[in-house]
Amino acid sequence: MIKANKHRIQTYIESLARFTATPGNGTTRLSYSKEDAAARRYIKQEMANLGLSVREDAVGNIYGKLEGALKNAPAVIIGSHFDSVPNGGSFDGPAGIIAGLEVAALFQEYGLEPQYPLEVIAMIEEEGSRFGGGVLGSRMIAGQITPADLYEMKDSIGLSAAAAMEKLGFNAADICSARRTGNDVKAFLELHIEQGPLLEEGAQDVGIVQMIVGMTEIRITVRGRSGHAGTTPMEGRADALAAAVSILNELPGIASDESDLPVLTVGKLDVLPNGANVIPNQVVFTVDIRSANSDTIKRILRKIDKLVADAERPGISLSIDELLYAEPVEMSANIQSLLIGNCEKLGLRYRKMVSGAGHDAMIFAGFTDTGLIFVPSKDGISHTPEEWTDYAQLQKGIEVAFETIVQLTEAKEKSSNTEM
Amino acid sequence: MIKANKHRIQTYIESLARFTATPGNGTTRLSYSKEDAAARRYIKQEMANLGLSVREDAVGNIYGKLEGALKNAPAVIIGSHFDSVPNGGSFDGPAGIIAGLEVAALFQEYGLEPQYPLEVIAMIEEEGSRFGGGVLGSRMIAGQITPADLYEMKDSIGLSAAAAMEKLGFNAADICSARRTGNDVKAFLELHIEQGPLLEEGAQDVGIVQMIVGMTEIRITVRGRSGHAGTTPMEGRADALAAAVSILNELPGIASDESDLPVLTVGKLDVLPNGANVIPNQVVFTVDIRSANSDTIKRILRKIDKLVADAERPGISLSIDELLYAEPVEMSANIQSLLIGNCEKLGLRYRKMVSGAGHDAMIFAGFTDTGLIFVPSKDGISHTPEEWTDYAQLQKGIEVAFETIVQLTEAKEKSSNTEM
Repeated sequence: MIKANKHRIQTYIESLARFTATPGNGTTRLSYSKEDAAARRYIKQEMANLGLSVREDAVGNIYGKLEGALKNAPAVIIGSHFDSVPNGGSFDGPAGIIAGLEVAALFQEYGLEPQYPLEVIAMIEEEGSRFGGGVLGSRMIAGQITPADLYEMKDSIGLSAAAAMEKLGFNAADICSARRTGNDVKAFLELHIEQGPLLEEGAQDVGIVQMIVGMTEIRITVRGRSGHAGTTPMEGRADALAAAVSILNELPGIASDESDLPVLTVGKLDVLPNGANVIPNQVVFTVDIRSANSDTIKRILRKIDKLVADAERPGISLSIDELLYAEPVEMSANIQSLLIGNCEKLGLRYRKMVSGAGHDAMIFAGFTDTGLIFVPSKDGISHTPEEWTDYAQLQKGIEVAFETIVQLTEAKEKSSNTEM
Repeated sequence: MIKANKHRIQTYIESLARFTATPGNGTTRLSYSKEDAAARRYIKQEMANLGLSVREDAVGNIYGKLEGALKNAPAVIIGSHFDSVPNGGSFDGPAGIIAGLEVAALFQEYGLEPQYPLEVIAMIEEEGSRFGGGVLGSRMIAGQITPADLYEMKDSIGLSAAAAMEKLGFNAADICSARRTGNDVKAFLELHIEQGPLLEEGAQDVGIVQMIVGMTEIRITVRGRSGHAGTTPMEGRADALAAAVSILNELPGIASDESDLPVLTVGKLDVLPNGANVIPNQVVFTVDIRSANSDTIKRILRKIDKLVADAERPGISLSIDELLYAEPVEMSANIQSLLIGNCEKLGLRYRKMVSGAGHDAMIFAGFTDTGLIFVPSKDGISHTPEEWTDYAQLQKGIEVAFETIVQLTEAKEKSSNTEM
């Protein structure tokens, strides 16, 4: 039985964690930032060291490819994303890229040759922390994003995604060349930290995801009228924050009215001009809604539409932008079977589960057979500097991924291959 | 009758307006910023050009002094502040400094010699946009601030007021030397834009302030627990924003329950970590409360204390800091009489009024005879780039200030003085 190299896994994780805008306070690595550029150099170098042929697509996703014996065969892709939330951890995203690197390392170390090409992928902007919406790297690969979209998406200082990627030498206009389809991709496998408490509570090693919940992210903009806090009577005000609060206050109730336990989160809210003695003239906030049932999400969205319409009054105008809409997605039954078989073969405890978090896997599932493996998150937390997965646990998950990639690529030892 | 120079007034206003961090989008001049440093150089140069002896106190307030004929006599001070809110206008603050400069220019031009020294003052951090609370320059002059306070006050990136002022060469430890008292100040006169609609509605030239409302600013910090928006059930969350909203939603009602029309404003609110798919672990917001009746303010504060206490629950902790507390303040009856007499002498339409905005004058009123003159604000607006006062209106207000300063300093023409 081939074992993954725990020391190498640890080195990869710790090396990538160095590329953060907030040293000492977790990983902050926004897409196309200088930390992205530094992490990108590291990943490309490591891919090259593993004998992979390295390329970046037009929008900045990184590929390292090991050619297969079959000519023009579709690729088996393994990987995840290398952007982070502000002050996030070292595992959310990197764990899956490192799974890809470690699988490639094992292929090199044990002289395995795939029949179908093996590609390790490192994607950008899964979190949406810079441009909103999330899973942007995989949505660009799936052909869901146009150049015009990239000019419209803006970061917090108003820079477009197109302009930001251009600074690193990428080209929004050429986004079509980043497209992958079922014709050139045989399967996609992602390993990710669970970001919840279930595996730890159940003392299980691996989670085999059956389905990813549907999720949507909207942005609500409330525009009012500025004025002096002392000289503007309450009566005549058009206070954008007061109007936003009238909506925010109703949102938890809208979620709890549903019986199937959807989650609804307002994580990002910005007030303008944000001076203590100035009546706010603009408030922008996001609403993230997730449920295993797409009808639930649609019903919640309709109720929010009504809340927003009801908040209109003289001086106050509101608008809603949809940043992301993703239906619940099933993972490939075939890959689930392989994963289960490999857990059993390796003697690992596993559970089937539903993912409450969105992942690039849900986008790939739209055009290719896709599998998603979870490894335990200590205390169930993530998106904080304290996010943690024991390296021994990460190793076990990667061993399941390795066995599955060997099967999907139909890899053989080079010596035996030579004999053929 | 000596006329103020409208062209010179316009030049002063337009020159100061150039020192902004947001060119083309109003005046953004935070205390101790590089725009402060540039405006400071300009003000000191103009004071020197007017023959004033220029000094900065230990914390960065600027004085230009014209010595009086009387030895060791207390000074008559005229001026206002040169910091701004984010994206504010060109008049809020500068109008009063320019009134001081123009009065000094007229003293020079017409050879007037004061008996009591005339000091023109340009103060910092009246708005509180950088460190919260407001009227910090005058509170330091009044001896209400200790060095320890300056180390505790932080800007949005966590830099203390003490550290920020040190970058411009000032010294928080030496704050006592900035203290002024009734022994060395005979009177203080401030000209300010009204920032409300009353003068324009009444077609009046000048407002003579009888009283400034009481005001308080508190900061409420809500601490919760971060987590992933998709994997953390609604049930177990400690969402700092949801807890903050439960308070914010009650605030307008607390104000409208009062019969004497207090105003209550939440102008500044910051969410951490502010990622769309991360449950907020901290929300910090300010509440600004103003009323002519200090009992009203105290009652509102008690209700907010209760709201905050009621919002405590497992995982959520809250705290309140008082950034500013100022009782309602009467302006000097003697100076009000002088102002009224001068309006009548100059043939100007005036009204007596209450100021809903706080001004440095309310702090000076604590230790010296203080007057406050308002000039009209177009459409009653301020704290926005559109803030405007016609130069002809500013000129009229400055002429009232000039006549009053001549009286307060007991100024005489130098020629007649020489004859004495």
